[in-house]
Amino acid sequence: MYELLKKDGMAKRGRFHTVHGTIETPVFMNVGTAAAIKGAVSTDDLRGIKTQVESSNTYHLHVRPGDKVIKQLGGLHKFMNGDKPILTDSGGFQVFSLAGLRKIKEEGVHFHSHIDGKKIFMGPEESMQIQSNLASTIAMAFDECPSSVADRAYMEQSVARTTRWLARCKEEMARLNHLSDTINPKQMLFGINQGGIYEDIRVEHAKQIAAMDLDGYAVGGLAVGESHEDMYRILDSVVPVLPENKPTYLMGVGTPANILEGVDRGIDFFDCVYPTRNGRHGHVYTNHGKLNLFNAKYELDDRPIEEGCQCPTCQRFSRAYLRHLLKSGEMLSQRLLVMHNLWFYNHLMQEIRNALDNGTFAAFRAEYSEKMSKRI
Amino acid sequence: MYELLKKDGMAKRGRFHTVHGTIETPVFMNVGTAAAIKGAVSTDDLRGIKTQVESSNTYHLHVRPGDKVIKQLGGLHKFMNGDKPILTDSGGFQVFSLAGLRKIKEEGVHFHSHIDGKKIFMGPEESMQIQSNLASTIAMAFDECPSSVADRAYMEQSVARTTRWLARCKEEMARLNHLSDTINPKQMLFGINQGGIYEDIRVEHAKQIAAMDLDGYAVGGLAVGESHEDMYRILDSVVPVLPENKPTYLMGVGTPANILEGVDRGIDFFDCVYPTRNGRHGHVYTNHGKLNLFNAKYELDDRPIEEGCQCPTCQRFSRAYLRHLLKSGEMLSQRLLVMHNLWFYNHLMQEIRNALDNGTFAAFRAEYSEKMSKRI
Repeated sequence: MYELLKKDGMAKRGRFHTVHGTIETPVFMNVGTAAAIKGAVSTDDLRGIKTQVESSNTYHLHVRPGDKVIKQLGGLHKFMNGDKPILTDSGGFQVFSLAGLRKIKEEGVHFHSHIDGKKIFMGPEESMQIQSNLASTIAMAFDECPSSVADRAYMEQSVARTTRWLARCKEEMARLNHLSDTINPKQMLFGINQGGIYEDIRVEHAKQIAAMDLDGYAVGGLAVGESHEDMYRILDSVVPVLPENKPTYLMGVGTPANILEGVDRGIDFFDCVYPTRNGRHGHVYTNHGKLNLFNAKYELDDRPIEEGCQCPTCQRFSRAYLRHLLKSGEMLSQRLLVMHNLWFYNHLMQEIRNALDNGTFAAFRAEYSEKMSKRI
Repeated sequence: MYELLKKDGMAKRGRFHTVHGTIETPVFMNVGTAAAIKGAVSTDDLRGIKTQVESSNTYHLHVRPGDKVIKQLGGLHKFMNGDKPILTDSGGFQVFSLAGLRKIKEEGVHFHSHIDGKKIFMGPEESMQIQSNLASTIAMAFDECPSSVADRAYMEQSVARTTRWLARCKEEMARLNHLSDTINPKQMLFGINQGGIYEDIRVEHAKQIAAMDLDGYAVGGLAVGESHEDMYRILDSVVPVLPENKPTYLMGVGTPANILEGVDRGIDFFDCVYPTRNGRHGHVYTNHGKLNLFNAKYELDDRPIEEGCQCPTCQRFSRAYLRHLLKSGEMLSQRLLVMHNLWFYNHLMQEIRNALDNGTFAAFRAEYSEKMSKRI
C-alpha cells in the first residue's frame, strides 16, 4: 500500500495507494469535521486547492446526522459527493475533550453527547462499527488521549489499555471488512502511539503497536499544550521505532514550521484546524508570515494576499476587497480566506515533496524558515 | 439602448444594451447589497447560476468601505472582480428604512449612519456622486420612499419633491459623466415612480418623469406592506404611462407569482432578497412550492432539492446532506441553498423569456401558477 520513494535523513517521500486513489506524501489533510470544510468550502472546491485527502470526525458524525444515516445514504463519499480519500478520526480525542461527564472502563467509555446530553457508549468495537458505516478510506484506532500532564502511573495504565483496545480494533475491523453489506471492505486501520511526554513509555508502546502490522501509524497526544521541543524530542525517539514501510501521521499538527520539523523527523501525514480557523478569523498565510486582513492598512491595497499565489482567491480578489468583506461580516470572506489558507498548506506540502524528490529538502527547510521569520 | 423584441398583451420581451454587456429581459437582478451576494457566493459563482445582472447598494457601500475607497480601487466591477452589469440602488430606500433620526429638506436628507451613528447628508447630487464613484452600469435616482400609509397631502408634496430631485439627479449625472476621471462615463440613470397606492398621484408622476427621457423607469414604494391587489392595480395604471421603448423595473419584488404578474403588466427588471434570505434559512424553491430542508422527513432523502434541476447544488448534493449541513450550522449549507434559489429565479426568468419568444406566455403563466399551488 505504501511505497517509500526516497529518504533524506529521517524525512520520507512516499506514495500511499488507497481504494479512493493515491496520496503523495508528505501530505496535509484538510479538516472537514462534520462532513464539510468550515467556511462554505464544498468537495467540489477541493479540486481547485490541491486537496489530496480530507479528514472527518467519527464522534461528530455519530451524534449528527448519525453514522447509520450516512451508511443508508451510501457512506461518506457519496454523502459529501467526494471521490478523494477520507480519513476518519476515531472519536477518542473528542470523547476526552468535548463530551460531558465520562467514565472510562476496560470495555470503553460512557459519556454524554455535547449536543443533547444523551448517554453514549463508545469502545473499540463501536468506533470501528461507526467508521465502517461511514466507509472512510482510513479508520483510526480508538484510543485514550490522556492529559499531557497525567502522572506516570496513570499514563502507564492508560497506554496499556490503549494497546488492548488496539488489538480489539484490529479484530473488529477485520470482521467488519468481511461482512457482505460493508460499503468499503478495504477500509484501512491506523494505530495511535500514546504516552504523553514520557519518552520510554512512548517508545515501548511504539514497539508494541509496530509489531501488530497495521496499515499506518499515528503519533497522538501531542500538540495538546506541551512545548515544541518536547514534541520534537518525542518524534525523534518514536518515529525510528515505527515501521519505515508504513505511513506515519502526526495528529493535529500544526504550523508550517511544525510541519517542516515533522517531515524532517519522518512524518507522512499531518492535519490541523489552523488554516481553516485562522482563515475564518481574517488571518491568512503568506511565505513571509501571517497577515491580519482586518488591519486598516489593507483598506486600499489592491494586491492579492500574496503576489504570485495561484490559489482561486489570489487569482481573483484583492486584500482591499477581502478586508471589506470581513468588516461587513460577509460570509464570502470566510470562504475565500479558508480557500487561500488550505491552498497555502497544500502547496507547501507540494514544495516539500518536490524538495525531497530533488534531494534539496535541507536547503528548502532552512530557506523557508528564514523567509517565515521575516514579516513583510 | 433598449430593444423591444416582442409584446404579448402588456408583457414585454426586451434586450438592454449596456457598457457591461447585454441584458435579456424580463430579468431578475441578484442582490449583492455590500458588493457580495450573501451566502458566500462570489462573482465567479454567478456564471454557474445564470446571473445576468447584480444589484448593489449605494447607502451600504457609502458607509462601508466608502465609495471613495471603491473609486480609488477602480470601481465596483474591479473591486468585486465581476464583468456583468451592476445596478446600484440610490440609497434613498435605506435612508428611509435603516438610518437613524433623519430630517428631510429640499436639499436632501440629514441622517445618522446605522453602523456608527455618524451624521451623513445625502441629496440627489451626493447620491449621483457616490454612484459615479462606484461606477455601476445603472444608477438609480435619489427619491423619497414615503410610508405606504402616508396621507394624501404628504404623498403629494413628497412626490413633487421627488420629481424636483430627479431633475437634479439627471443634471448631476450628465455633469459627472463628462468629468475626465469618471470611471464609467456611460453610466445610465433610471427614474423612480412614487405615490403610494394613490393611483392618480402615481399616474400624474409617471407622466412627468416619462417626459424627462431617462434610460429606464422604476416603480418604487411597492412591496412595502400593501396588498398584492393594490400592487397589481398600481402597475395596471402606471406602466402604460411609462415609455414602452425604455426598460421598466419593479423594485423589491418578489415571489415567483408576483414576478409572473409583474411581467404580465409590462415589467422588465425585478430584484428581491427572498431567494438569498430564504436560502440562508433553509427554505428552497421548487416548481411545486418551497421546501423547508430542516424538516426531519429529509433525513434520508437522497434526491436533489428538485429532480432535473441543473443548478450546481442539485447536480451534486442530496436533500439529506443539505439538511445535515443546516442542522450542523455549516456555512456550506447557506452557500449551496442560496445558489439553488438564485438559479431557480434566474431559470424562471429564462423560461418566461422563452415563453414570450414563443408566444406562449399566457399558457406558461397559467400552468406555472397551477403547479406552484400544488405542494409536493
